[in-house]
Amino acid sequence: MSRLENSAEHSWHVAVMAMLLAEHAEPAIQVDRVVKMLLLHDIVEIDADDTFLYDETASLDKADKEEAAAARIFGLLPPTQRDEFTALWREYENRDTADGRFAYACDRLLPMLQNLANQGQSWREHGVRFEQVLRKNLPIQEASPSLWQYVLPKLEAARDAGWLA
Amino acid sequence: MSRLENSAEHSWHVAVMAMLLAEHAEPAIQVDRVVKMLLLHDIVEIDADDTFLYDETASLDKADKEEAAAARIFGLLPPTQRDEFTALWREYENRDTADGRFAYACDRLLPMLQNLANQGQSWREHGVRFEQVLRKNLPIQEASPSLWQYVLPKLEAARDAGWLA
Ligand SMILES: [Ca+2]
Repeated sequence: MSRLENSAEHSWHVAVMAMLLAEHAEPAIQVDRVVKMLLLHDIVEIDADDTFLYDETASLDKADKEEAAAARIFGLLPPTQRDEFTALWREYENRDTADGRFAYACDRLLPMLQNLANQGQSWREHGVRFEQVLRKNLPIQEASPSLWQYVLPKLEAARDAGWLA
Repeated sequence: MSRLENSAEHSWHVAVMAMLLAEHAEPAIQVDRVVKMLLLHDIVEIDADDTFLYDETASLDKADKEEAAAARIFGLLPPTQRDEFTALWREYENRDTADGRFAYACDRLLPMLQNLANQGQSWREHGVRFEQVLRKNLPIQEASPSLWQYVLPKLEAARDAGWLA
């Protein structure tokens, strides 16, 4: 049984994967922007969890906590960088550009490939169903039909092998 | 006592640091190329250690082992990517461009800042001397005089505090 990647490991891994798979994006993307988004994307979530879990913002929803965390973290930087990083983070979160959608697709694709590589370990642990995986990973299809065509038969094989309920 | 970062964590950390410090490079650099170099730079070294430690290439020197490892790893990729990644890796190793020098400087700067942040833990464990740190980190000065001006007084304070021999 393999341990889960921590956030820094995951961020490195998914950024390298984006470099490798960039040519499969459709429409085409700017890989350098995607890499930056992926290097930054988990920082805000961690800060939102760490900083706001039990304090006065506990009643805020996840999106509001993450907005507050982004303002806090990126606010530590000089204004030019603050604005650049905030915009990259928001583009990733909103997925309203091809770059943001492809970055998000990579972030979905990596754990799927990790599951496929270890007999569906976390799928089996959590009783995940095939239809859930299809639905949750629709963003991959939207950002790269060819990558989706690559993984779909593997997901079907995983279902047939009983790794997915 | 803090554990050492593993290679994926280090690569993520130093790539983000390069994004943050890029404006201090002198001459100016292309941060996107530097980030890619830093995301890739440790892969070859790991492979060289893992693959070639005890086998028939044991007599090769470090540089030859790393060349063989680079050919093996990047050779797994389609030719265009193989050539791009090999060139980025070589530029980092050779430090014959501003981008390569700045990437290398970031890779030197990060452990120094980590030492400064934890009372010189690994300096003290290994009895490292102030002059060694100055010499080993000359690449920082070459890639960014202003970053060097920032860290030098901190190194002097570390010496005065006895963290460096
Ligand atoms: Ca390194």
